Amino acid sequence: MQLQKLGERKITKQITKRFSIPYDDCALFEINGEYLLITTDMVYKKTHFPKEATFYQMGWYSIAINISDIASKGGEPIAYIVAFGLPRKMEIKNLEEILDGMEDCIDEYGGKLIGGDTKEANEITIVVTALGKVEKENFIPRKGARINDYIYVTGTLGKGGASLLDKNMEKLLLIKPRLKEGRKLARIGINCCMDLSDGLASSLYQLMDINQVGFKIYANKLPIDKDAKKYKNWLNLALYYGGDYELLFTTPKEIKGIKKIGKVIERKEVIIVKNGKEIKMENKGYEHFIS
Amino acid sequence: MQLQKLGERKITKQITKRFSIPYDDCALFEINGEYLLITTDMVYKKTHFPKEATFYQMGWYSIAINISDIASKGGEPIAYIVAFGLPRKMEIKNLEEILDGMEDCIDEYGGKLIGGDTKEANEITIVVTALGKVEKENFIPRKGARINDYIYVTGTLGKGGASLLDKNMEKLLLIKPRLKEGRKLARIGINCCMDLSDGLASSLYQLMDINQVGFKIYANKLPIDKDAKKYKNWLNLALYYGGDYELLFTTPKEIKGIKKIGKVIERKEVIIVKNGKEIKMENKGYEHFIS
Repeated sequence: MQLQKLGERKITKQITKRFSIPYDDCALFEINGEYLLITTDMVYKKTHFPKEATFYQMGWYSIAINISDIASKGGEPIAYIVAFGLPRKMEIKNLEEILDGMEDCIDEYGGKLIGGDTKEANEITIVVTALGKVEKENFIPRKGARINDYIYVTGTLGKGGASLLDKNMEKLLLIKPRLKEGRKLARIGINCCMDLSDGLASSLYQLMDINQVGFKIYANKLPIDKDAKKYKNWLNLALYYGGDYELLFTTPKEIKGIKKIGKVIERKEVIIVKNGKEIKMENKGYEHFIS
Repeated sequence: MQLQKLGERKITKQITKRFSIPYDDCALFEINGEYLLITTDMVYKKTHFPKEATFYQMGWYSIAINISDIASKGGEPIAYIVAFGLPRKMEIKNLEEILDGMEDCIDEYGGKLIGGDTKEANEITIVVTALGKVEKENFIPRKGARINDYIYVTGTLGKGGASLLDKNMEKLLLIKPRLKEGRKLARIGINCCMDLSDGLASSLYQLMDINQVGFKIYANKLPIDKDAKKYKNWLNLALYYGGDYELLFTTPKEIKGIKKIGKVIERKEVIIVKNGKEIKMENKGYEHFIS
């Protein structure tokens, strides 16, 4: 059987199961009473970036998506290691531009580039591994949602989808990970959190699986991005497109300034309420190997 | 200017200089009085492995080369994160074989696979990031060689080159990183160490650059691998081929059971003494982008 028969999430599930790895945004291990967070993301120029993307934007993006994972666990970044796969005919100035983007993103959000590896490859490949830390009591897992928790989402939804359609590379790639928000939520104490890189629907289904609960979302409460609203299918952009690097979390607490979009329910289903009607949300989003 | 005009080591030097990263086998940072070691290696099926290599061997190799880096700093592995880039038409059982190789290597040398990323790619790409630890006082840097130190090398030389020519994939890829030896050397206290993955000549030139000293090597003292000896150009295999995952180190101490191959000298040159004649060693070895 080929990998395309399974798709990215089933493959990942198989690997994590085999090695008894908790399925979360970051790996973690305890070191002197704190958690060290580790996360890695591989991006290929060919499959991850529209052709309009600049090298600077690719560099920024490859760092920022890792910071988003750390943010979703309530942590802060400490250090980055980068493995580059680069074609031999690549211009050195383009590598410099990638490094410019990385450096600016690191300057903005903290941490330090401390090492890496550079190899020859047919297509530009960037693998950033980020290390972060979080006090043990402040760590926010994916597993922890409770029935009747409110569901919240930071920022707006549909940004990723709209930017892709608009070919707005700055908005698509110069993402602003919710680091400050994650730290604040960690201190407040919330039940579960993940970042929205896979899209709202897919993320809720992943949380359903991990938490063995369901979710009811109200369409009229979703904070839709203004560029997404221009599209007739704005709801699809908000639900089924990835690339919104926002935080999705649940807590019974009232939290000001962050949009409440629904509730955790007992029945293991992901429901969207639209015009007073309850519809089952589809379990789809961007997924490697099959999308 | 294109990357191929520079070559792997000059590119790496440019990046490490820009971010003020010490050029060593592992990155490190202090955490509660210990050093956390981090190292990453990217391998491509297409460019790193002969076509005879099995998936199992690739899995083992991709973990083992990272352990070798940790061993060369006197540390021990704690955890691994793996980013996979995999073609959609790849057979699942081949991925399982890669994981078998990784698991067996981890079982042998310690640590735990704690996370990763899986993405679609045109060619099989494996990026392992390994974390290790070492007591601060036991860390062995690349920079630290002193004039008149002895130069030592563990195991034998020319194994990598001979295995490649013999198409002996087991010997080439199921490498045994010198973890125990590295830990022992760390406790004894030695001046500088690196692993020999780039080959003896290239490694000595890298150490010359970092330490601002020279090296004199005696050809008749080199521990030549028995399979390398079958080749007329055995000395070339020992000096200029990579893939010998041994430890190269310097210390003024007498160390039993490990082969002494030369001496650190003041003049910044890498010399090989053969049949009583001193010859300058060439600065070459396997290098991405130009080899």
